[in-house]
Amino acid sequence: MAKASVSSLICDLAKSFYDLGWVSGTGGGICIRDGDHVVIAPSGVQKERMLPEQMFTIALDGAILDRPADTTLHPSECSSLFLKAINLRDAGAVIHSHSIHAVAATLLFETEFAISHLEMIKGIEGMGYHDTLVVPIIDNTARECDLADALEDAILRYPDTYAVLVRRHGVYVWGADWVRAKTHAECYDYLFRAAVEMRRMGIATCMGGG
Amino acid sequence: MAKASVSSLICDLAKSFYDLGWVSGTGGGICIRDGDHVVIAPSGVQKERMLPEQMFTIALDGAILDRPADTTLHPSECSSLFLKAINLRDAGAVIHSHSIHAVAATLLFETEFAISHLEMIKGIEGMGYHDTLVVPIIDNTARECDLADALEDAILRYPDTYAVLVRRHGVYVWGADWVRAKTHAECYDYLFRAAVEMRRMGIATCMGGG
Amino acid sequence: MAKASVSSLICDLAKSFYDLGWVSGTGGGICIRDGDHVVIAPSGVQKERMLPEQMFTIALDGAILDRPADTTLHPSECSSLFLKAINLRDAGAVIHSHSIHAVAATLLFETEFAISHLEMIKGIEGMGYHDTLVVPIIDNTARECDLADALEDAILRYPDTYAVLVRRHGVYVWGADWVRAKTHAECYDYLFRAAVEMRRMGIATCMGGG
Amino acid sequence: MAKASVSSLICDLAKSFYDLGWVSGTGGGICIRDGDHVVIAPSGVQKERMLPEQMFTIALDGAILDRPADTTLHPSECSSLFLKAINLRDAGAVIHSHSIHAVAATLLFETEFAISHLEMIKGIEGMGYHDTLVVPIIDNTARECDLADALEDAILRYPDTYAVLVRRHGVYVWGADWVRAKTHAECYDYLFRAAVEMRRMGIATCMGGG
Repeated sequence: MAKASVSSLICDLAKSFYDLGWVSGTGGGICIRDGDHVVIAPSGVQKERMLPEQMFTIALDGAILDRPADTTLHPSECSSLFLKAINLRDAGAVIHSHSIHAVAATLLFETEFAISHLEMIKGIEGMGYHDTLVVPIIDNTARECDLADALEDAILRYPDTYAVLVRRHGVYVWGADWVRAKTHAECYDYLFRAAVEMRRMGIATCMGGG
Repeated sequence: MAKASVSSLICDLAKSFYDLGWVSGTGGGICIRDGDHVVIAPSGVQKERMLPEQMFTIALDGAILDRPADTTLHPSECSSLFLKAINLRDAGAVIHSHSIHAVAATLLFETEFAISHLEMIKGIEGMGYHDTLVVPIIDNTARECDLADALEDAILRYPDTYAVLVRRHGVYVWGADWVRAKTHAECYDYLFRAAVEMRRMGIATCMGGG
Repeated sequence: MAKASVSSLICDLAKSFYDLGWVSGTGGGICIRDGDHVVIAPSGVQKERMLPEQMFTIALDGAILDRPADTTLHPSECSSLFLKAINLRDAGAVIHSHSIHAVAATLLFETEFAISHLEMIKGIEGMGYHDTLVVPIIDNTARECDLADALEDAILRYPDTYAVLVRRHGVYVWGADWVRAKTHAECYDYLFRAAVEMRRMGIATCMGGG
Repeated sequence: MAKASVSSLICDLAKSFYDLGWVSGTGGGICIRDGDHVVIAPSGVQKERMLPEQMFTIALDGAILDRPADTTLHPSECSSLFLKAINLRDAGAVIHSHSIHAVAATLLFETEFAISHLEMIKGIEGMGYHDTLVVPIIDNTARECDLADALEDAILRYPDTYAVLVRRHGVYVWGADWVRAKTHAECYDYLFRAAVEMRRMGIATCMGGG
């Protein structure tokens, strides 16, 4: 895909994530890999009002290959985190959401979010209805870039996960391409919300415990 | 209606169902009967971004009559379930929703969802305000196609129902045509949500019990 | 205003009410008075997909003055209820909503909904911040037209109200023109929702009781 | 910026605030400073349907510099409150929201809203993840203009705040320009909602108390 199409897609997706409450207050973001480089949004801008010409292109090692004409812009602070999922798990796209459902899940679970026996679990690649979906939870840090080591550690310890929750912060979700990353993000968000509701109703989130 | 119009309608409805939270994560779906065949969406695609040219046409026995040029697409896994409502109840359209309200209802009720004395009950054909609306709940299975027998059984045991809930999964809803199927889907969803709220408030969902 | 403009406005407003969850499942509705006649939507149609040419014009006594070419359409079942507010209170527009917040309020209050000391109360004509806003609640009936007597009775007993709640059903709201009716409807809905939340938090909805 | 662009921007933002539930029932509002004058919406109009030609221009002392042709319109009742943030804190834009999350927060906290250790706190200028975000709460008054003294007092007592909550009413939020005011408004609203949810889950909103 040409950079222009990827950039337009990022703007389009970011607008829909805003409508879902995932990227309000300039928070959250998305990047899409395009071959050996990654198109990524700038830091600290209104995610629902971005323009394609504001996007950066970075290499897989984080080097800036192409930048917007507007010199006040900087690549998203999530860059080093996004690159962890891309380089360690061959992700084709990574979504970072501040969804209140994700944050609530990190307040109700300790080191792992776990849920089983909900149809939407099947939306996560490799998972079946009877499987227990586990998402590691890492602690938040004062600066977003300082999360990179903890994120890498969680990715290595949970080789099957497509998401890492960050306590009191949100979630990073990825997939082999943007469609699968977005599908994962929607399924995880649904499951975080369902788990919070289940806890409120006094229903265990996992069969045989939880 | 020409296939093109039905296909466009399906895409349009699926987008609005996405906005309602019924078909996120590529889940859920809709089919519309057009005479002796059925137009149905492909499996595993983003329901809010479908194009009319991606639709399948199948016969009432499930045989594929017309398929999209994109050979990577397969008919929705719900096909055999949709055909149960079409063939056993003469449905003109069937909607499958993963609405969190439907799932929550299946967690609070055992084998039957039941509610009475809410105006929206009148939106279900044949039901009056004083009637108790009952929706059978069947257990989920690992594969969607394995639900077909349980769905058929529920349809036969509840000859007046226009919906079958699937525990921890969602709901199948139908009607004589797409307008009535959609109206039913909206009324059922409202009633599932109302019931969950009523339980939370400690209010019985049925007069004289519940 | 020409009938065409009023009809377009009704379709436009109904679409936005659908997005608010007030008129799903073909329920709810709106009428707008235009001099000595009233433009009103048909019964049992999808409120978010209405077309201007589907509107009826009725006289203040309910007589049909002008009807759509589509002979399968009938005037809204709410007609006699809408006319009560128009004739008894000189309303310029009446909105009927099935909002789940309105229904929940009727489950938590007995014969009167009452709330005080919320800024949004000031959005109801004649009310100040320190006033207690009271909305009468009437019991629902099997058929919508049978509500007319109870609605008239409530309107006469509460000469200052711009709304009547119908238990387990919804609410009728009006104002001197469509802008004031819509403003009232938004304020009442906000207050119903706020009251339900306050009850859930254990906070009295009225200062000095409630 | 020409007045026309600022006016269009206000209409556009007000529409999106309506969709967020911040300015329903003609309540709430926004003003944007443009050099030595301020563009402000009229009082008591539907905020989601405003037109650029309905805007007022006022001086920093409140004098009307330019008014719409429609002589029935008056400047927003919030004018004197907006000017407090503009003159005392050099705000470039002020947003007034009736968000139900803000109102709920004022019901759960006494004189100060306080929250710590949530990522979205970083969206407020000058705040870090480990800081405790404090928002003063002032009591509501019968008339909006009577709030001005209490608002000024709160602004002077809390020199670092970018928001003042008004009990049972809503919140005033500002920033150095409209982007930062809107970012602040989104972050505060998220945090008010999060705090209400945390209280409901029995989780303290501040580490070491709250």
